[in-house]
Amino acid sequence: MRILALTGGVGGAKLAVGLAAKLPKDEVAFLVNTADDFEHYGLHISPDIDSLLYALAGINDPATGWGRVDESWDCLTTLKALDGEIWFQLGDKDLALHLMRTELLRNGHSLTHAVATIAKRLNIQHELLPMSDDPVQTIVATDRGHLAFQHYFVRDQCEPKVKGFRFKGASNAALNPKLKIPAFDAVVICPSNPYVSVDPVLSVGSLREQLIDTSIPILAVSPIVGNTAIKGPAAKMMRELGLQGSVIEIARHYQDLIGVLVVDSSDSAHAHEIESMGISVVVTNTIMTDFDSKKSLAQTCIDYLNESHLVR
Amino acid sequence: MRILALTGGVGGAKLAVGLAAKLPKDEVAFLVNTADDFEHYGLHISPDIDSLLYALAGINDPATGWGRVDESWDCLTTLKALDGEIWFQLGDKDLALHLMRTELLRNGHSLTHAVATIAKRLNIQHELLPMSDDPVQTIVATDRGHLAFQHYFVRDQCEPKVKGFRFKGASNAALNPKLKIPAFDAVVICPSNPYVSVDPVLSVGSLREQLIDTSIPILAVSPIVGNTAIKGPAAKMMRELGLQGSVIEIARHYQDLIGVLVVDSSDSAHAHEIESMGISVVVTNTIMTDFDSKKSLAQTCIDYLNESHLVR
Repeated sequence: MRILALTGGVGGAKLAVGLAAKLPKDEVAFLVNTADDFEHYGLHISPDIDSLLYALAGINDPATGWGRVDESWDCLTTLKALDGEIWFQLGDKDLALHLMRTELLRNGHSLTHAVATIAKRLNIQHELLPMSDDPVQTIVATDRGHLAFQHYFVRDQCEPKVKGFRFKGASNAALNPKLKIPAFDAVVICPSNPYVSVDPVLSVGSLREQLIDTSIPILAVSPIVGNTAIKGPAAKMMRELGLQGSVIEIARHYQDLIGVLVVDSSDSAHAHEIESMGISVVVTNTIMTDFDSKKSLAQTCIDYLNESHLVR
Repeated sequence: MRILALTGGVGGAKLAVGLAAKLPKDEVAFLVNTADDFEHYGLHISPDIDSLLYALAGINDPATGWGRVDESWDCLTTLKALDGEIWFQLGDKDLALHLMRTELLRNGHSLTHAVATIAKRLNIQHELLPMSDDPVQTIVATDRGHLAFQHYFVRDQCEPKVKGFRFKGASNAALNPKLKIPAFDAVVICPSNPYVSVDPVLSVGSLREQLIDTSIPILAVSPIVGNTAIKGPAAKMMRELGLQGSVIEIARHYQDLIGVLVVDSSDSAHAHEIESMGISVVVTNTIMTDFDSKKSLAQTCIDYLNESHLVR
């Protein structure tokens, strides 16, 4: 069985680490959101790609959830002293990766090639595919106007009230040229933000339609536990969009796409309602606090898909 | 009296520090070589400008002679681990300055504006003018072919044998638009490499001719002491060009331009020969090892120019 895992940033990267630990490189590939990518000081920054690179290489910072472990901040501190823009936290080591990716892109290579080159140098075995080599940009409609994602997410700390989302460029963007959907036997939607991490991936070209048209099982892991998100603004976004911030909304959001939703044990009371939507439910611990819990959740997903009892 | 000081990198910056300590900002301005500028990882790097910025701000590294004091190297170390190009030493703090300058240029500002902005943020009072806002590039003809200056100087460690120099773009480049030659009463050529630091400055537009045509006194401080250069490849270049590597050659090089040459006490035996070329000689200690010796040499230059007994 070969799994295609769709993932965004920190939350998705945790399950990705589990999947990569449980499956050899031929059995799982990662398709990653790049609609958060932006240019900062002329550097091409790919926050979700980087979260996954650092996580899979085992050099992510477990304390912050983003960036590199044992990071230093001399460049940023100096930029601050020079009155530079410092709302985006550029670590000294992280900068090296941005410089290298930007250089590869400037030399005419695709983002896919740049990411593969860097992944190889970080000794990452598994395939890590940007959703597209074309620019796609998440625009967040808010009570303070339309904001580029990193401005909303980092600069403005998710404070503006969300009204909706747009993925600029998505309809014209080509799916990653290395992605061959028929080569996969199952899809796992990692516990990333459905609105700003997974939806941009699904919006590229006809991916959403292609997945709906396939007969391969699609499993999602809920990023919502109880009425909150383990990490990030998903629950806050849901409330601002007038939705109840619960796993029910995750099921509704993916209703036309998934055959099974993996929910946390604390949400087992919602299982019946989700099943009434025609979605199977797996109840397990979905909170990944360490390597073991990442592997355990990954194994639960793999086992379920291997048993192939998904009905779509 | 208002002095225009022409300067390159480390050696010139030492005298510049002395001049800036001795003269208020209205009485000395620095015109700096930018023909060493190059692009590295997409960053616009101006080595001579930076040496002067760091020296005038008092944050230069006295041990290496270039870069910032108390520098850290986490980005470079990480680039190395990623198999990146690391022949040019990018310090973490130095990177902040490159990022900021590159961003200002990308936003449409001139190099002059970018340098002035950064100088202000470093609390530098004196005017620091790039020789031109247009690109000029020193090309070193060597036994290994034509090399961009930073490739010759840093990457190849000045090992190739020099055959000559070319300043690509110089004839079409406009002198710094803020530079008004008639506003100056004297010129000091700092003890920088005559071939690759001072000549590029003189080659921009018609600066050399303008200076020859003016009646203002021009004083040069020899970068050669004994038969060697205090810093850098000047003496090696001289030998490779078939010249004797002595202060005599410096006099010959600037013969049509200068009225006085300041030479080190150890070169006093050459004074008569230099005077026979029609150049006055000031003999003093020119080796600047500390702040006092920088100020002292600057004062000697200022005193001589104030006495205005230069004959051209």
